[in-house]
Amino acid sequence: MRMLINVPETVVADALRGMAAAHPELTVDVENRLIIRRDAPVAGTVGLVSGGGSGHEPLHGGFVGPGMLSAACPGEVFTSPVPDQMARAAAAVDSGEGVLFIVKNYTGDVLNFDMAVELAEDEGVRLAKVLVNDDVAVTDSLFTAGRRGTGATLFVEKIAGAAAEAGAPLERVEAIARQVNESSRSFGVALSAVTTPAKGTPTFDLPAGELELGIGIHGEPGRERRPMMTSREIADFVVNAVLEDRRPSGPVLVLVNGMGATPLLELYGFNAEVQRTLTERGVAVARTLVGNYVTSLDMAGCSVTLCQVDEELLRLWDAPVQTAALRWGR
Amino acid sequence: MRMLINVPETVVADALRGMAAAHPELTVDVENRLIIRRDAPVAGTVGLVSGGGSGHEPLHGGFVGPGMLSAACPGEVFTSPVPDQMARAAAAVDSGEGVLFIVKNYTGDVLNFDMAVELAEDEGVRLAKVLVNDDVAVTDSLFTAGRRGTGATLFVEKIAGAAAEAGAPLERVEAIARQVNESSRSFGVALSAVTTPAKGTPTFDLPAGELELGIGIHGEPGRERRPMMTSREIADFVVNAVLEDRRPSGPVLVLVNGMGATPLLELYGFNAEVQRTLTERGVAVARTLVGNYVTSLDMAGCSVTLCQVDEELLRLWDAPVQTAALRWGR
Repeated sequence: MRMLINVPETVVADALRGMAAAHPELTVDVENRLIIRRDAPVAGTVGLVSGGGSGHEPLHGGFVGPGMLSAACPGEVFTSPVPDQMARAAAAVDSGEGVLFIVKNYTGDVLNFDMAVELAEDEGVRLAKVLVNDDVAVTDSLFTAGRRGTGATLFVEKIAGAAAEAGAPLERVEAIARQVNESSRSFGVALSAVTTPAKGTPTFDLPAGELELGIGIHGEPGRERRPMMTSREIADFVVNAVLEDRRPSGPVLVLVNGMGATPLLELYGFNAEVQRTLTERGVAVARTLVGNYVTSLDMAGCSVTLCQVDEELLRLWDAPVQTAALRWGR
Repeated sequence: MRMLINVPETVVADALRGMAAAHPELTVDVENRLIIRRDAPVAGTVGLVSGGGSGHEPLHGGFVGPGMLSAACPGEVFTSPVPDQMARAAAAVDSGEGVLFIVKNYTGDVLNFDMAVELAEDEGVRLAKVLVNDDVAVTDSLFTAGRRGTGATLFVEKIAGAAAEAGAPLERVEAIARQVNESSRSFGVALSAVTTPAKGTPTFDLPAGELELGIGIHGEPGRERRPMMTSREIADFVVNAVLEDRRPSGPVLVLVNGMGATPLLELYGFNAEVQRTLTERGVAVARTLVGNYVTSLDMAGCSVTLCQVDEELLRLWDAPVQTAALRWGR
């Protein structure tokens, strides 16, 4: 086991203590497992809360801050957070304008966020919920009924976060989040398996010299295995899978995302091939983000997410954001 | 080989094409292997140029932009860039106020930057040079006479970059860069070996269940191998090694750096232990940065860099920066 940890049982609590030390601009509640922007609740704005199993960092905790999430609820590694956590987060960030839950489509997350909606509404918080289900690789999977939520989560959180920051009402923030999800599609590839702290050995077997096309962010099975392909071939396959599902009729945001263990040098090289194939297919690119954002612990691999944007979504994407992992503008 | 590449020969050129596509705010010259801020040369300011072998991304290309580097020269993987590249970068960013070369202490880099100084001076550019040699693990190494340059490079580039952006003259920017290097110490740990594209297999043998203390960012040998240690034990060992070499007499910047393949979840947990041991040792922490910044391709592991700061250095650290990998302020 090649992990930089103490014991598997304290991995999430240890990480939260480390986040607290590095980010005084956040309120990190280690006991209750919450990461909250320090100035929450922000008067006159809708609160945005997301969360999910840990092991996908910087998602979601690294996206908490002005212009993006109000709070994040980390669960144990690859395990849903609990309803109490989510309800507590909602109460902490509600300014009276209501709260939007952004939920990746995994069975545990969906159930627990649903229970949290009831808990929070009992406390008088007005709630809305948006499901992210952008992964075109498979329908129904190890932990999912329907499609998995992956890279589009970043687009939903950023764009809805900008709308909330600008003072849009709950119904509008929800509609924008829904539009972003509906406009987004993803496809991922694994070059190696993932090892969780609790298990200590790879969660599935992927022989060297093979890759798995359509992998999920917990190592859930994809569509097929093949002998190793070049970056160019992978880009063609991945972009084709995304475009077959939804052919954009306008410019797109591109996320070229690393699964955690693929070097940035390779991700940028892969981006060159993704851009080439998009150009060949006549898809106009408005903005591109390259990096490790929606990860799967130590898995090597990548995913591509395309999100078609109109002028409003692009303006919201470009709006300032100040989080641990995503920052631009003022 | 689990790499997201086409062929080893085009890895760097492919990555530069991918950077160009993702970062319209940069001028990326794929043929001449240069990454330059688009508004260079900036009138009235000193130019900052760094570079080195590729495979350490986001170092250096990810640090080009307002408030940090003016240009970066990427070499082949783990191979020094050539003098022509560096001289060309100097000419491109010189506003007439001169250029500072920031050079990590590896034999090839030192020789080539020295030749580039001559080339650039022949072209009428006023040059200064600062060597970064912060790694306390070993003196003299595979590619180094003296100490290796590692994590402190980020501090030197950021802080000297802020001074240059503010209009400080060449002598002052050079003195600040030198002060930052002299105030910085690093120590790194490998949990796995690194695999270069050209070789395709690990460059050294590190059995599972062992770690190497004092590793270099090219997988150069460290001080010793030990059976796997906990995050807490590693933090104690690493911080102790740094403090034994230089005991700060004032507050420090802390860089908890990932080598590339260690999940952010683990890095934050490791940071909690680093902060604990610094507190126990009475070292005051001014700022902390956690992430994969000075990497070694797919190596798992981490390093810690401490940089003692006075009020001026801290102010320069906090000054706005807008690069691909490091961004804050306006």
